[in-house]
Amino acid sequence: MLNIEQLREMATASRAAARVLAQTTLKQRNEGLLAMACALQEAETAVLAANEEDLAAARLDHTPEALLDRLRLTSARLRGIAGSLRELADLPDPIGTIEKSWRGAQEIAIEKLRVPLGVIAAIYEARPNVTVDIAGICIKTGNAIILRGSKNALKSNICLTAVLRRALADCGLPADSVQLIEDTEREVTNVLMRLNGYIDLLIPRGGAGLIKTVVENSSVPVIETGTGKCHIYLHQAGDIKMAQSILINAKCQRPSVCNAAEGLLVDEKIAAEAVPALAKVLAENQVELRGCSKTCALTAYALPAQEQDYYEEFLRLVISCKVVSGLREAIDWINEHGSSHSEVIVTEDTAAAGKFLAEVDAAAVYHNASSRFTDGGQFGFGAEIGISTQKLHARGPMGLEAVTSYKYLIHGQGQTRK
Amino acid sequence: MLNIEQLREMATASRAAARVLAQTTLKQRNEGLLAMACALQEAETAVLAANEEDLAAARLDHTPEALLDRLRLTSARLRGIAGSLRELADLPDPIGTIEKSWRGAQEIAIEKLRVPLGVIAAIYEARPNVTVDIAGICIKTGNAIILRGSKNALKSNICLTAVLRRALADCGLPADSVQLIEDTEREVTNVLMRLNGYIDLLIPRGGAGLIKTVVENSSVPVIETGTGKCHIYLHQAGDIKMAQSILINAKCQRPSVCNAAEGLLVDEKIAAEAVPALAKVLAENQVELRGCSKTCALTAYALPAQEQDYYEEFLRLVISCKVVSGLREAIDWINEHGSSHSEVIVTEDTAAAGKFLAEVDAAAVYHNASSRFTDGGQFGFGAEIGISTQKLHARGPMGLEAVTSYKYLIHGQGQTRK
Repeated sequence: MLNIEQLREMATASRAAARVLAQTTLKQRNEGLLAMACALQEAETAVLAANEEDLAAARLDHTPEALLDRLRLTSARLRGIAGSLRELADLPDPIGTIEKSWRGAQEIAIEKLRVPLGVIAAIYEARPNVTVDIAGICIKTGNAIILRGSKNALKSNICLTAVLRRALADCGLPADSVQLIEDTEREVTNVLMRLNGYIDLLIPRGGAGLIKTVVENSSVPVIETGTGKCHIYLHQAGDIKMAQSILINAKCQRPSVCNAAEGLLVDEKIAAEAVPALAKVLAENQVELRGCSKTCALTAYALPAQEQDYYEEFLRLVISCKVVSGLREAIDWINEHGSSHSEVIVTEDTAAAGKFLAEVDAAAVYHNASSRFTDGGQFGFGAEIGISTQKLHARGPMGLEAVTSYKYLIHGQGQTRK
Repeated sequence: MLNIEQLREMATASRAAARVLAQTTLKQRNEGLLAMACALQEAETAVLAANEEDLAAARLDHTPEALLDRLRLTSARLRGIAGSLRELADLPDPIGTIEKSWRGAQEIAIEKLRVPLGVIAAIYEARPNVTVDIAGICIKTGNAIILRGSKNALKSNICLTAVLRRALADCGLPADSVQLIEDTEREVTNVLMRLNGYIDLLIPRGGAGLIKTVVENSSVPVIETGTGKCHIYLHQAGDIKMAQSILINAKCQRPSVCNAAEGLLVDEKIAAEAVPALAKVLAENQVELRGCSKTCALTAYALPAQEQDYYEEFLRLVISCKVVSGLREAIDWINEHGSSHSEVIVTEDTAAAGKFLAEVDAAAVYHNASSRFTDGGQFGFGAEIGISTQKLHARGPMGLEAVTSYKYLIHGQGQTRK
């Protein structure tokens, strides 16, 4: 296994690369992104061959088809990945801007300048496109990145990062801006979590177990991503047809993702009509319904819910349902059972929607739209490095700005403090 | 000792208070601040009596006069503390503002709303004014605060928080917005650090040991504050008289604080004249000078520096000095030895200053002014909850904005994701 000294050496090389990157112009960084995009497409044969090795190994391991599909690269997917890098190049410069300037004590002139974070490390699972997406976001923002992907995608990731590093070097940018940890032993994560002073930010993207381990054990600053116990609340003044459509989209379009719905709340004033109507579309879409006693009394399709069903992030075709007495109970329920990710109210009552949006404590709160929109691309951020469920200080879909910081520049004429 | 269940109960009460506070108007929160200010002055006799108990106990412990002075409250100091609360009430609302609004995919309307963080816990030492300052900042920003002060100031803190809680309750705000942990056992810190889901942010303010412990062991998000290995770099085109004045202000005005100078760098092109001139004013101010071999060759006042003198935050009248070959070496030296707090260049060369400001990676980078300005009050933030030396995502003096977050509000007409 890589020992702590070797990881420190890697991180020291990242730091050196980050210092160079931080002083580059937008033009240089954009050229790097375009070169990365070209190089990926030019290397298609090698990339797909490496990916095929990962796929073959995964098939031998009896990996389910859904996971194989996440792992799979194709010519079209590679084109899409390269396209994302080109889109990044079109975005405005996320660093180098003076956000504010003002006069402090004794007329010292203060400027707040947006700068990169420095060295970022990401621990993530499965999909090899994430490797390129994260690398692209980091180059755009002048950060160096240390990647630690999953064992399943190792051959693909080795090939992809080699191509990206060569492309960067060809443009005169440091190859060490993008480094991959090839060691997939679990112990490496433990070492990364303790590299204070070497890594500025650690982002765990993956299963709940990985995220919990990192949040609980990292001394490097972490952004917690992704756990989503998201609710759809049908208010008494809500349109039942709209609720059906939003519910099915939020639950079924991609059940394994964090912005999928995992809990349904129905106002008791319309429950007699709404619960059977919602149960009907859930049944049509093969979604198992686990309901409270009132829910079960209104539809034979529901199974009785256990207490923990109201907290669980199912990530499959299962949803809990609770009949609530009104807006107050719905808000309190969500603040107690939700994971502060994405919460939806369906209602035609603007005042009720306003109260829900104000009082629900979550990264994204929706009125009459699906929770599936919580995504950097859907929000128009151009790119996303993850979805933060913490508040310190990035929240929700994290675009370019989330991986930048700022520093204060102070211009004096010899002032000393009184 | 308070056990984990009792601390969870306290934090649950804080959470409930935070939910109420988050929905208050600016007017209500400002009335709370003014009531706190009045109540403190009305309770002067009780507060000073409690403080005298702390002082008496500290004297019995042979506490040095400098520490006694930090602990001491007087009528004038209490007036100053109340005045700070009134100044907070004059500041604009740090929450509730829509920072941006735009259209996402399928025309969903997205707003970014600034909201409080929720429940903040602060672990801090000595000065009882910090108790009131932090409480005030939290009320202004709609956050609940759990305070854990030092044992030395316990009687003062108990009296102060009781007064503040009563004042809040009298205005109809939750008393539990401000809670004090009266148990001063060290173990309490360990429990606080693991209260994920109860506490949104933990701020350690105090000695390097406390900060290191919290940063390394907390699973609750932390903002690291305060370690300051700050440098004054006299560039070849710098005014030696200005450097003398800035150096003495930065080193001697208050040697025990984090924005005090701890290292001096002198350009070798002017070292023959500058080093003796700087050594002279250091000697006049009883500052011990620990220099590199070139420094020692230029002034008999310098003692030879050891390697670790270049890293140490002395917090007393000692400074290290290194003669450097020029701007490049100075920047690299600071990025290697500094703590990313506050760094100063003294020069009349604007291009050199620009390069220094761009390339030094620190929260505050100064051109021709003292590092002592790194302070919320001096920056014009009105208040400060600490000085962050990390970058995720608050940096430098942390005013009101640093204890807020945001959430996204999304308004649709039934959109589901394609």
